[in-house]
Amino acid sequence: MKQLNLTAAQIAEIVKGTIIGDAGRQISGLAGIKDAKTEDMSFVGSKKYAEQLTTAQAGIILICKDLADTSTENRTLIVCENVDIAFAKMSAMFADEPPAVIPGIHPGAVIDPSAKLGKNVSIGANAVIEAGAEIGDGAVIDALCYIGHDVKIGPATRLYPNVTVMYRCSVGAKCIIHPGVVIGADGFGFVPGPQGLVKVPQTGVVEIGNDVEIGANTTIDRARFGKTVIKDNVKIDDQVMVAHNVAVGESSILVAQCGIAGSAEIGRGCIIAGKAGINGHISLGDGCQVAGTSSVVKSLPAGTIAVGTPAESQREFLARVALPKKVQKLDAKIKELEAALAALSAKQ
Amino acid sequence: MKQLNLTAAQIAEIVKGTIIGDAGRQISGLAGIKDAKTEDMSFVGSKKYAEQLTTAQAGIILICKDLADTSTENRTLIVCENVDIAFAKMSAMFADEPPAVIPGIHPGAVIDPSAKLGKNVSIGANAVIEAGAEIGDGAVIDALCYIGHDVKIGPATRLYPNVTVMYRCSVGAKCIIHPGVVIGADGFGFVPGPQGLVKVPQTGVVEIGNDVEIGANTTIDRARFGKTVIKDNVKIDDQVMVAHNVAVGESSILVAQCGIAGSAEIGRGCIIAGKAGINGHISLGDGCQVAGTSSVVKSLPAGTIAVGTPAESQREFLARVALPKKVQKLDAKIKELEAALAALSAKQ
Amino acid sequence: MKQLNLTAAQIAEIVKGTIIGDAGRQISGLAGIKDAKTEDMSFVGSKKYAEQLTTAQAGIILICKDLADTSTENRTLIVCENVDIAFAKMSAMFADEPPAVIPGIHPGAVIDPSAKLGKNVSIGANAVIEAGAEIGDGAVIDALCYIGHDVKIGPATRLYPNVTVMYRCSVGAKCIIHPGVVIGADGFGFVPGPQGLVKVPQTGVVEIGNDVEIGANTTIDRARFGKTVIKDNVKIDDQVMVAHNVAVGESSILVAQCGIAGSAEIGRGCIIAGKAGINGHISLGDGCQVAGTSSVVKSLPAGTIAVGTPAESQREFLARVALPKKVQKLDAKIKELEAALAALSAKQ
Repeated sequence: MKQLNLTAAQIAEIVKGTIIGDAGRQISGLAGIKDAKTEDMSFVGSKKYAEQLTTAQAGIILICKDLADTSTENRTLIVCENVDIAFAKMSAMFADEPPAVIPGIHPGAVIDPSAKLGKNVSIGANAVIEAGAEIGDGAVIDALCYIGHDVKIGPATRLYPNVTVMYRCSVGAKCIIHPGVVIGADGFGFVPGPQGLVKVPQTGVVEIGNDVEIGANTTIDRARFGKTVIKDNVKIDDQVMVAHNVAVGESSILVAQCGIAGSAEIGRGCIIAGKAGINGHISLGDGCQVAGTSSVVKSLPAGTIAVGTPAESQREFLARVALPKKVQKLDAKIKELEAALAALSAKQ
Repeated sequence: MKQLNLTAAQIAEIVKGTIIGDAGRQISGLAGIKDAKTEDMSFVGSKKYAEQLTTAQAGIILICKDLADTSTENRTLIVCENVDIAFAKMSAMFADEPPAVIPGIHPGAVIDPSAKLGKNVSIGANAVIEAGAEIGDGAVIDALCYIGHDVKIGPATRLYPNVTVMYRCSVGAKCIIHPGVVIGADGFGFVPGPQGLVKVPQTGVVEIGNDVEIGANTTIDRARFGKTVIKDNVKIDDQVMVAHNVAVGESSILVAQCGIAGSAEIGRGCIIAGKAGINGHISLGDGCQVAGTSSVVKSLPAGTIAVGTPAESQREFLARVALPKKVQKLDAKIKELEAALAALSAKQ
Repeated sequence: MKQLNLTAAQIAEIVKGTIIGDAGRQISGLAGIKDAKTEDMSFVGSKKYAEQLTTAQAGIILICKDLADTSTENRTLIVCENVDIAFAKMSAMFADEPPAVIPGIHPGAVIDPSAKLGKNVSIGANAVIEAGAEIGDGAVIDALCYIGHDVKIGPATRLYPNVTVMYRCSVGAKCIIHPGVVIGADGFGFVPGPQGLVKVPQTGVVEIGNDVEIGANTTIDRARFGKTVIKDNVKIDDQVMVAHNVAVGESSILVAQCGIAGSAEIGRGCIIAGKAGINGHISLGDGCQVAGTSSVVKSLPAGTIAVGTPAESQREFLARVALPKKVQKLDAKIKELEAALAALSAKQ
């Protein structure tokens, strides 16, 4: 982290926040709320974490409006509209630059003469680029990547080391692909035949839009025919599995270890949380949110919030979670009824 | 996709189907039922998707027997015994060929002089083959693969790029191994010792049969001793985890992101669906089917269908899913009883 | 496996066990209890597997105290304090040595001149080591590994092939990192902006302690700022996902396919079983145990055993599993009450 000396006044200007306390208070670094020392700035973005403020040592703390009544003893607070965005801005200022990318082609890279390389591309050591591949201007293909035949990589896209993109698949502009990602392996399709399982040829491709980010070791399979589609601005975490012929709509978010089965369609602006599973051949409307570890087995209309296995509404899920207590109560009532009935019987 | 002009009559002959409508109707491409235009052939393989036929534009549609009463207005139908197999056959005809494999050894590959290479093998750029490895006739080891010491790769097997096979493991004939697969990493075994956890040496291997397919980024660990075994014709999807000393029987199917814990035995012809987990040291008889995201904690007799966490029968699982409604009904009945009892008490 | 001829007396001395039966009985190999022949030694470590002893063929069997009454017909038993540790010791004796590591730098490796290599390091074929990286004495970086800028790898640490360690991350001494592992890919952080999702820079690192083992294709993301921390002696299985800013305490165990969401804190000596999920921003005290496939959504005090989704105590989980039977009983009782009430009503 860079060391920068900044006052609360300077920070408030950068994040467009309102100072509570000493505007001249100065910090020189950033840290999480538990680790921050008096010379650090930190943040608390939700009332949920209010109790962390009681023991926090940070000299300056970015807080949300709900926390504006926090004590300013020994510190200055800055109230922000959106603490996450504000802290991200500060974090970027303090960040050490990532290692510089040097345009050019490493002599250890193996590039087929028929591949077309744009301007200012960077191809890392021992990367392999097959015949007919096209690499857009300013794209970075890091060490040990494999770019298959006729693959297209868009301008300003970054492939970190050890990424595999199989033949004829395409990645758009300004994408970020993390190590270990596999794009375009065969989809999983077999039909029973007289001599056992017969492979269904997976003859399609994967088409990835612009501004897509894909996390480490995620796999996106090529289509049985046609294409598996990841639209613009989709953000995918680590170890996500996207099966053949899936379509993921713009700006949707797929969190770590979730899986989308074959031919499912995910709308725009959906959030599929960690470890959730989406069945094949179903569709989720725009803006659906699926809770972590949930399993969606039926299509969902736009805007649905789904929880559980099989997924249901939040209300239904909470009722299900509370079921043992409810059954306990019914049991008690039944015992009361039995006693009352026995008493009544005895009277006669 | 290749463009081919085919009539319904020609297609019916290829797929051994029965034409309903105009046998002279012609198409030139294939597409999914939603995307297909009048010049395309498509398919609907199950009554479940019958409503897709109402808006479908495809000129020719392969359908199952259950859908034989579908309207033939503007289109020709071909009824097939097995739509999946029929469409797979057509799909293979229209498919662009995958990039041709050129036999030979890329000069960037690093091959130990003691490795034995069969006839017509292809070794890709920057692949690494260690001492004592044996590569069968016609096998393809793609770019950036790692083949460990004394590994055996069978004839006509294809390793796509970036596959890792660790020392002494073996892969049979005609297998397909997708990118990012790791075969033969250490199994996970530790015992508590006086100074903390002590590693249990993992001295066994992985032995993979013939005609096995393994999906991207799947991991199959070497045995603690003896071997982890994947029998002939097993088909494994992406991101599957097979732990040490597991045995998977012939023609079983492991769907994406499922996990088989140590020393579990999976019979022949089993289907372990996506994200399911199988506990260690248990056995599943032949033909068991485990539903997606289910968790099997006890051995299952042959032919069992298991659902849920912990897994139970379908009937039990559905009863569990319906439990909140059942409890609601009991609650209502109890209220009725209370009222009736109060009325009876009042009478006395 | 090596062939060694050992008598029960010799084995009992090595494992510090007590012989029941013929001390002169001799074996020449090891095998699992189902596969072992009369010339093999095997083991049964728990009463759970007692029935395996009835059909076992092994000449010598290591058993736990609970099984000391087992028949010694045709075999010799050795009672051990801890069968797992005892068998691991024997297994190590019989194990073939793994392929020898030859110190030195493979000519195909690409190493930046500014990287600092310790004594007796081994760098494999086609590995890539970037500027400023430091490799400790005796460390082994296998073929096709990628070591980013300014990465530190501790002494005697082994990276198996195809491992990726991104810039500025560090791995301690005597660690074992299996193939396909990705350390230091970006954490997953986005904030909604006026033109869609905006990436939150992930400016921190990953810091891994000593004696850590990490299984194949596991991913450990770099921190948003500061560091993601894996403490000494932590053991991580295959396909585990550790998100940004997570901290895992000493000697904890993360089993295959589990996932730890952002900023979660796992105490010392915890066990997170296979496929379990831990929510972000929560903490688990020392010695917590989370059952396989469970989902922990709230912080847990030290020593908690948690099961289910959302996780609860074992007692609560078992009650929930038994709920359908309990509801069945209530249903029967209600029917009895209805009948009794009807009878009573009729009497009046």
